Amino acid sequence: MSRADLLFPAEPTQRGIARELYALAKNQPIISPHGHIDPAILAEDTPFPDPAQLIICPDHYVTRMLLSQGVSPASLGVPTRTGEPYETDGRTIWRRFAEHWYLFRGTPSRLWLEETFANVFGVTTRLSPDTADEVYDAIAAKLAEPEFRPRALFERFNIEVLATTESPLDDLGRHAKLAADGWGGPGGRVVTTFRPDNVVDMEFDNWADNVARLGEITGDDTTTYHGYLAALRSRRQAFIAAGATSSDHGHLTARTVLLDEPDAAKLFEKGLRGEATEADAETFRGHMLVEFAKMSIEDGLVMQLHPGAVRNHNTWLYDTHGRDVGGDIPRATEYVYNLLPLLEKYGNDPRLRVVLYTLDEDTFTRELAPLAGGYASLFLGAPWWFLDSPEVLRRYREAVTETAGFYNTAGFVDDTRAFCSIPVRHDVSRRIDAGFLARLVAEHRLPLDEAAETIVDLAYRLPKRIFKL
Amino acid sequence: MSRADLLFPAEPTQRGIARELYALAKNQPIISPHGHIDPAILAEDTPFPDPAQLIICPDHYVTRMLLSQGVSPASLGVPTRTGEPYETDGRTIWRRFAEHWYLFRGTPSRLWLEETFANVFGVTTRLSPDTADEVYDAIAAKLAEPEFRPRALFERFNIEVLATTESPLDDLGRHAKLAADGWGGPGGRVVTTFRPDNVVDMEFDNWADNVARLGEITGDDTTTYHGYLAALRSRRQAFIAAGATSSDHGHLTARTVLLDEPDAAKLFEKGLRGEATEADAETFRGHMLVEFAKMSIEDGLVMQLHPGAVRNHNTWLYDTHGRDVGGDIPRATEYVYNLLPLLEKYGNDPRLRVVLYTLDEDTFTRELAPLAGGYASLFLGAPWWFLDSPEVLRRYREAVTETAGFYNTAGFVDDTRAFCSIPVRHDVSRRIDAGFLARLVAEHRLPLDEAAETIVDLAYRLPKRIFKL
Amino acid sequence: MSRADLLFPAEPTQRGIARELYALAKNQPIISPHGHIDPAILAEDTPFPDPAQLIICPDHYVTRMLLSQGVSPASLGVPTRTGEPYETDGRTIWRRFAEHWYLFRGTPSRLWLEETFANVFGVTTRLSPDTADEVYDAIAAKLAEPEFRPRALFERFNIEVLATTESPLDDLGRHAKLAADGWGGPGGRVVTTFRPDNVVDMEFDNWADNVARLGEITGDDTTTYHGYLAALRSRRQAFIAAGATSSDHGHLTARTVLLDEPDAAKLFEKGLRGEATEADAETFRGHMLVEFAKMSIEDGLVMQLHPGAVRNHNTWLYDTHGRDVGGDIPRATEYVYNLLPLLEKYGNDPRLRVVLYTLDEDTFTRELAPLAGGYASLFLGAPWWFLDSPEVLRRYREAVTETAGFYNTAGFVDDTRAFCSIPVRHDVSRRIDAGFLARLVAEHRLPLDEAAETIVDLAYRLPKRIFKL
Repeated sequence: MSRADLLFPAEPTQRGIARELYALAKNQPIISPHGHIDPAILAEDTPFPDPAQLIICPDHYVTRMLLSQGVSPASLGVPTRTGEPYETDGRTIWRRFAEHWYLFRGTPSRLWLEETFANVFGVTTRLSPDTADEVYDAIAAKLAEPEFRPRALFERFNIEVLATTESPLDDLGRHAKLAADGWGGPGGRVVTTFRPDNVVDMEFDNWADNVARLGEITGDDTTTYHGYLAALRSRRQAFIAAGATSSDHGHLTARTVLLDEPDAAKLFEKGLRGEATEADAETFRGHMLVEFAKMSIEDGLVMQLHPGAVRNHNTWLYDTHGRDVGGDIPRATEYVYNLLPLLEKYGNDPRLRVVLYTLDEDTFTRELAPLAGGYASLFLGAPWWFLDSPEVLRRYREAVTETAGFYNTAGFVDDTRAFCSIPVRHDVSRRIDAGFLARLVAEHRLPLDEAAETIVDLAYRLPKRIFKL
Repeated sequence: MSRADLLFPAEPTQRGIARELYALAKNQPIISPHGHIDPAILAEDTPFPDPAQLIICPDHYVTRMLLSQGVSPASLGVPTRTGEPYETDGRTIWRRFAEHWYLFRGTPSRLWLEETFANVFGVTTRLSPDTADEVYDAIAAKLAEPEFRPRALFERFNIEVLATTESPLDDLGRHAKLAADGWGGPGGRVVTTFRPDNVVDMEFDNWADNVARLGEITGDDTTTYHGYLAALRSRRQAFIAAGATSSDHGHLTARTVLLDEPDAAKLFEKGLRGEATEADAETFRGHMLVEFAKMSIEDGLVMQLHPGAVRNHNTWLYDTHGRDVGGDIPRATEYVYNLLPLLEKYGNDPRLRVVLYTLDEDTFTRELAPLAGGYASLFLGAPWWFLDSPEVLRRYREAVTETAGFYNTAGFVDDTRAFCSIPVRHDVSRRIDAGFLARLVAEHRLPLDEAAETIVDLAYRLPKRIFKL
Repeated sequence: MSRADLLFPAEPTQRGIARELYALAKNQPIISPHGHIDPAILAEDTPFPDPAQLIICPDHYVTRMLLSQGVSPASLGVPTRTGEPYETDGRTIWRRFAEHWYLFRGTPSRLWLEETFANVFGVTTRLSPDTADEVYDAIAAKLAEPEFRPRALFERFNIEVLATTESPLDDLGRHAKLAADGWGGPGGRVVTTFRPDNVVDMEFDNWADNVARLGEITGDDTTTYHGYLAALRSRRQAFIAAGATSSDHGHLTARTVLLDEPDAAKLFEKGLRGEATEADAETFRGHMLVEFAKMSIEDGLVMQLHPGAVRNHNTWLYDTHGRDVGGDIPRATEYVYNLLPLLEKYGNDPRLRVVLYTLDEDTFTRELAPLAGGYASLFLGAPWWFLDSPEVLRRYREAVTETAGFYNTAGFVDDTRAFCSIPVRHDVSRRIDAGFLARLVAEHRLPLDEAAETIVDLAYRLPKRIFKL
């Protein structure tokens, strides 16, 4: 297939304009303000493992699709935590994957993988059960070359800055190594993000132990609420010193709550005693979002909110393979009333910057665009996770632009665990934005020169500015 | 109008590809795994009544639209159960319908009827108040011919297999007749579907009486929960012997509940005593869905779930004309938490096959696609009822494909009470899929040869395989 | 930009058909059955103030977008009620606005303003920080001319009838003046609408005082529920005498409630004593909707329902600047169960006519289209407020037509406070409908002659008939 026109609208006038706009965005450096790349990859710069270990086993988009058709994660090399055996032979995994390649027709995974094969590894042989070995061998051969080590790829990918995500319990050692090598630290190419869920969410595995460890790390007495807040502030400073410009919060809902300090302290202590109910945990999470907003105003970290994932919905998958292997499911998410307490307190404060994400597309027009288009502190994050696909990226622009404009959106976020997929993910977003803007131009809703300025803003300037990168 | 390009995208590149793909699907035999055709039609093979009795009176899509503009169902020949008179003259009904034909502009009913007139009856005169009699007479003349008797049409429609829907209280006599004639039974052309709502839903009219009759039919003691389950198992076997490969469940919500057997028995007995609350009824329905999943694993029936219809919302319509005459309204439907109990128990069991339908389009992307794309037992049913229209069929593919792919969708289901509309309904679905796939091809997201394989899968192979037909 | 093809689909076949259809609708007189133009403008016919006072300060679409980027409403001339100063210099406001013009790319405000500049004021200079003064001066010069006084513009805009919206406490003096001048009264060019929220909603500022004033105006004893109903009936007659053909109801939800008269009276009295809870207020609002339906059947006023706005969500904005300045946010809205009590009582009564609006697009397909397509009393209002934009107007037709057809929709409603934006808003709607119908024609779903009839119905005949104008 000719891929130059990938994802552009077929209608020739729009396609022509989309090409022109895309040409302006195509070579902009990548700003990646949020994702889940292991910083060790770049800190150590060791060669990647075999193609299956690199591309299949850790990609839950891929393994969940095969699970949905009865192919077990263990047979695809997803490690078990039960002692059950799992496949470790890369070629076997790859062949199994190739047999089911047809399942990915029409999915973003198909696009991401094909483009990765072609553009990162130069492999244009079409994947099929018959060509599985050929593709595997070709990628494996490339992976052995020095130009395919992580830092070399980072440069080739034209990434200007990449944010990883760490918990406050992380020692940030990888980021120290990166800083020492001239790659990390404030203003560096690889920075961290402060993600405190495991010390904030009482329903998280081992929350109380995590809070204790937090105190050990900072030297604060986290058996008290006061010491707990001090420890969080302290870790935020350490993260800022490691280059962080934002925090990230992955709650079940977008609920925010105003508690007096004594009530918050009581709730915190109840949690530490192991007596908190589900409702208590939700209240405390909601209260802490407001606290983090206050801290953000003080220390300047941009707040990211990622609500709406029912974690580990597939309990068998969780029991067998643990977290983050494709067992989460989105749920309906309410923002208008849930964010109200936070917004009443800080919503009009221009020092606060909150980037809202969603797994519930229905809120784009009804809730998120009106909120971001009406509060100085709010910005709309890119379509996320189940929604980070061409059709939804297009619907996102169609849904939010009329009420929030382009300039209350925060730019594309790849959110990926798959290093090699970073370029294609950003490329897909740029192509879809080019197509959307091309339609506005073709329908005489926007002059071409303004569309041209806008696409560069969306691809580069906006994420850089909004995330302070 | 030239209808060869009906429903294809106007853009010439996409239209060209759509034509090519549609040509592959157009003549595939029809697999109709779910619908509401009266099996007597095919068992008796008697000629159809007059055009109004065939086409207008029983079609609630048509009568509710006219009701919405103040034309009473009685004046359109919908029988009353109150003793009030209703129109019985076919020609009068037809003329009244033709006067209001303009109301159907842009609706699927318009498409279905026009295509039925043209392709089934060869009548291409455009319907209008002026041509009402001409169209009526032309159709009436055809209906008198032997080639327009049900079995002849069945053959001409190229239906490979058609599933009707019966309650466990049905004696399956029509299906016995069909089997005797070589048309029915396991692997036959006309099969049944096990739909137990009237013996499961305590809020159904005469539920307790129905349960008693169930016991009479099977010889089990359905005054006990144990006997009730035995009777259901027994009827499932009888249905399987009459060709059934699936069951169907039309609950108000998608709620599933895990009850211990003693608790379930208590609830069942409470219901029989007439003491069950609304909440009890909901709990029992939810529990029974899990029981039916268990039975499905045992006996192999595919489970269909049709939640989300508020039955008889229009109470005057229900009081005057009864059920299934257009008085139901959809409601918001939640799947993620409601299905969780069932999924925790059986969701990863590849022996279970559950086809999920919805009347709430908002769940396509947020809930249904992630569920079907993450559990081995789940498949997505075609857009249903209010949603079985060109625009929604297109939005369905746009919404679910990126997360669930094509191969977790179960193929088109016509769900119709109108025998003559079967071909056009399947044809519309094939045309929309051709258009959607053509866009993927035109946007370089899928090679043409894979799109070609996919469209035949969607039209024929997938429903055949998933519904075990 | 050439604007002749504004908003038409780019694909040439569809564009050609859209042009042809639009040509039929373009010059139809404007029927404006619902909006918020101050009747004083037309009653006094005084020249408009400076361009900023006319176009920027009162337009909350504009000021909320700038607020969302940190530009304060006070700096844009929005009056404060706190005594804080606010900008009053038109040119300063205009320049500030022009600096942020890029924020409106892709928004309806951009379209409305550009078309207003060009078509109302003949100013085609592109707005930018550099041309701010030039555009300002050109518009200001026009505003000084007699042809730019309100009544002259009204004629030039080809408005056949315009409905304003007043509360029962309004003395309708402006409308009396209009009637005296031959512009108002029953069948006149400018009519009123009965909007009783401030005497119905116990949570409205000063509800009890408003009820007392209502009694003073009509001479009824509104300390009793009986007198209260009598006073409302009396004001409806006064509004009808001032040309009103509809009432309008802006509740938080679509809840309707059947209360016995004694219960309603008790609730009313509780409210007057200042003891009503939030739930009481909601119950009373719901009850009054049913009462108003009853009154509508008696006196013939069409009922409009506008639920779903969380008023004054941005509390700082409300505290500083008051109501209706952009601080409201939509919320999810339920219609199926909420309207049921009203529908059970009057839903099939053809004398009742209820026009339903929504801020929750998700209800188009799932709730509103099935309801309007199944009840004789229900019609669908045009997409409203946050939804009155090209993309949503298109999605509205795509979502509702298949189930409700075109003839259960009530035609476009501009709902505007900005007099000069009336023509462009109706024009946008006509263009989008032309594009939608063109697609139906291009896809062979509707013959061109029927599309031609339909677009004139949508633009002119339907709103005239449904709103009895």
